Amino acid sequence: MLVAILGTGSVACTIALRLLGAGHEVVLGARNPATATDRDWVRELGGKVEVVSLSAAASAGEVVVNATPGSTTVEMLIDLDAAALTGKVLIDTANAVVFGESGPLLMYPNGSLAERIQQAVPRAKVVKTLNTMNTAVQADPTGMAGPTSAFVSGDDPEARSLVTSLLHDMGWPPDSVIDLGGIASARGPEHYFMLFFGLARALGTRRFNIAVVR
Amino acid sequence: MLVAILGTGSVACTIALRLLGAGHEVVLGARNPATATDRDWVRELGGKVEVVSLSAAASAGEVVVNATPGSTTVEMLIDLDAAALTGKVLIDTANAVVFGESGPLLMYPNGSLAERIQQAVPRAKVVKTLNTMNTAVQADPTGMAGPTSAFVSGDDPEARSLVTSLLHDMGWPPDSVIDLGGIASARGPEHYFMLFFGLARALGTRRFNIAVVR
Repeated sequence: MLVAILGTGSVACTIALRLLGAGHEVVLGARNPATATDRDWVRELGGKVEVVSLSAAASAGEVVVNATPGSTTVEMLIDLDAAALTGKVLIDTANAVVFGESGPLLMYPNGSLAERIQQAVPRAKVVKTLNTMNTAVQADPTGMAGPTSAFVSGDDPEARSLVTSLLHDMGWPPDSVIDLGGIASARGPEHYFMLFFGLARALGTRRFNIAVVR
Repeated sequence: MLVAILGTGSVACTIALRLLGAGHEVVLGARNPATATDRDWVRELGGKVEVVSLSAAASAGEVVVNATPGSTTVEMLIDLDAAALTGKVLIDTANAVVFGESGPLLMYPNGSLAERIQQAVPRAKVVKTLNTMNTAVQADPTGMAGPTSAFVSGDDPEARSLVTSLLHDMGWPPDSVIDLGGIASARGPEHYFMLFFGLARALGTRRFNIAVVR
């Protein structure tokens, strides 16, 4: 499958590496493709991935991943040619957070970025996932002391299944992915960012994840 | 230790049972003590706990636990005699949530009930804990398939230590309690309510908890 990843930062390139490792093709989309190829994370991809404009990437991808900063994602998507995303699964991995004096603040409290994205590009099938853990965990989903969890939220059940399948390709074991349901359920993983932030500070590392245990 | 628990619902009575089991004394505080003794949860305590007014309980307790609904906790505490709480550890277990058409809404988004309580009763030492799991888990912290986590937040380190010690008494194993730091860190566990709610719906049970895995 040809996956377009919007963004050239650590999340974009970590996901790219996992997808390449599973045999998928990847294209990266950047605001400035010419300068993005010089970024450290893109260099680590070893020239195996082309960097094109955001619009060109979105048009090329069979599936599109948002790995741009959540604080500017909605504006970025509105600027894209809407036709590029029509009918496609759009995977949103971002946290829409600004940092205030007292710590992080959610941009969409009691709502979610994922819902805003679904409203902005109604003809795409938005699925939220992978926003609840750092790239250290995305790069090595089974590298912790025990199994941990990932979540998917989206209004289209087939889109959630496709994303779950891609997560398995990226190393998430069969029982690790929890289907939370419709796109409004993305409020859960997005609000969890506040606990993620507090845990990262308390533990002194971002290499951790939560497991849902029954 | 004599622990006053404000509230007579499932959380109040579950915590009462665990504390009694560890050898502590408990008194319950109710708006209407006369009618509260007839409530199912209070009956299950088998007459081992006296039910008095909220003010009388707060005055009597060496440690005070808030197990009243989070949506009205601040007003309830302001109505108490402030002297009753002066210098005491006040454990807050509540979630300040209202239910809208689209699901639960946090009353203090990008803030926390715990911080509001600390502002309302500045001479108490507020510690947030136990708001991240259902009473089924509070009643049996080691009854799941594997170890899970509890959190403490509060500005006074000694108060956090005392609450951690009470959690151990209530059955939480040594490594299960994560100290998140100051009272503003309660934003994490309080925002987690949105994910708790979504997980409960997706899993079809409230008998689950999260484990932080490194």
